[in-house]
Amino acid sequence: MKTKQRRLPREVREQQLIDAAVSAFSRGDYHSVSVEEIAVAAGTSKPTVYHYLGSKEGIFTACVRREMERLVEAIRAAVHAPRPTDDDPLRRGMRAFFAFVVDNRESWTVLYRRAAAQGQPFEAETARVRDRVTSEMAELITACTRDDYGDMDTRDAQLLARVAVSTADAFADWLLDHPDETPDTMAGHVAELTWSHLRTRGPAEV
Amino acid sequence: MKTKQRRLPREVREQQLIDAAVSAFSRGDYHSVSVEEIAVAAGTSKPTVYHYLGSKEGIFTACVRREMERLVEAIRAAVHAPRPTDDDPLRRGMRAFFAFVVDNRESWTVLYRRAAAQGQPFEAETARVRDRVTSEMAELITACTRDDYGDMDTRDAQLLARVAVSTADAFADWLLDHPDETPDTMAGHVAELTWSHLRTRGPAEV
Repeated sequence: MKTKQRRLPREVREQQLIDAAVSAFSRGDYHSVSVEEIAVAAGTSKPTVYHYLGSKEGIFTACVRREMERLVEAIRAAVHAPRPTDDDPLRRGMRAFFAFVVDNRESWTVLYRRAAAQGQPFEAETARVRDRVTSEMAELITACTRDDYGDMDTRDAQLLARVAVSTADAFADWLLDHPDETPDTMAGHVAELTWSHLRTRGPAEV
Repeated sequence: MKTKQRRLPREVREQQLIDAAVSAFSRGDYHSVSVEEIAVAAGTSKPTVYHYLGSKEGIFTACVRREMERLVEAIRAAVHAPRPTDDDPLRRGMRAFFAFVVDNRESWTVLYRRAAAQGQPFEAETARVRDRVTSEMAELITACTRDDYGDMDTRDAQLLARVAVSTADAFADWLLDHPDETPDTMAGHVAELTWSHLRTRGPAEV
């Protein structure tokens, strides 16, 4: 039985279209995905998709932006969670990050692999996303270390944030490449396998 | 006075063409560079460039491969240098890396920024370069830590290498973005500003 599609608020409709698009873009590279296919997956028509999101570039950009915001929100929520646990906020943020990557494999693929691999015309957008995530990370680092160390120098926080974001990328790629890893085992690796840990660990301990 | 161009051995000629191409590609993005312009800069003709390097894609790929080999060689030489200094081989390798980035700004730009920004058709080549550099890094880490810690687990070395390569990228970008930084100040940052350093440093020290 065919029912007439109810009119949905613009924002809800847009989110549904982006859901369908994230899914489509995560399966194939940018050029192999058609707007038609996104429309069908979202149960609507091509003109409707264009009406809401402008163009194929617009659709892809909307996907990258929304998935970035979701990732940032997930980490922020974990860091600021008022849970009295043993571990520190940075550790909670790290686990939230790995959990996001595992639970949102499609988002991660779209956000970090396709966008970077696509190059133009998304180079500027990719750089913007990276800057946004880095600023967010710098703020988190500054906030999380304030109680123990006082206010961190802005430039130190920026550098540390850039390194943290790059390192997070590498760990996330590793996690997706190795199905036996979990957010918890990854958090363990982060603690164990870092340069300075290696360098400060004395030979006697091994 | 025009002199007849002497015939050069193929390898020398090829290296000259790659020199000119690295320079050209570092100034503009892939599409904005013409083979004509590379030929003129190398003091030769377009057909000669095609004869040696096949196509514009072939030229770019040759640039990326050669610059990667130079970087790997520079680091390897520093790590294995039989110099009796205070610092450890990993630290020497790190300084060699930063020195390469500063001394070969053009190479770095071609290798890591243009290639990644270009996406297709260089996605596979970029991945290949990264894998090659990562394996090299895993070998160095294993070799440098053997005396103190014994043979490192292969998988641990791979993960550590991936993180090291990503971190190195982030530090190199920072170095190029901040003209007041030097290879030495960067080596200092690496030692001071890492997650695990931050986490193991007690509040009392500050």
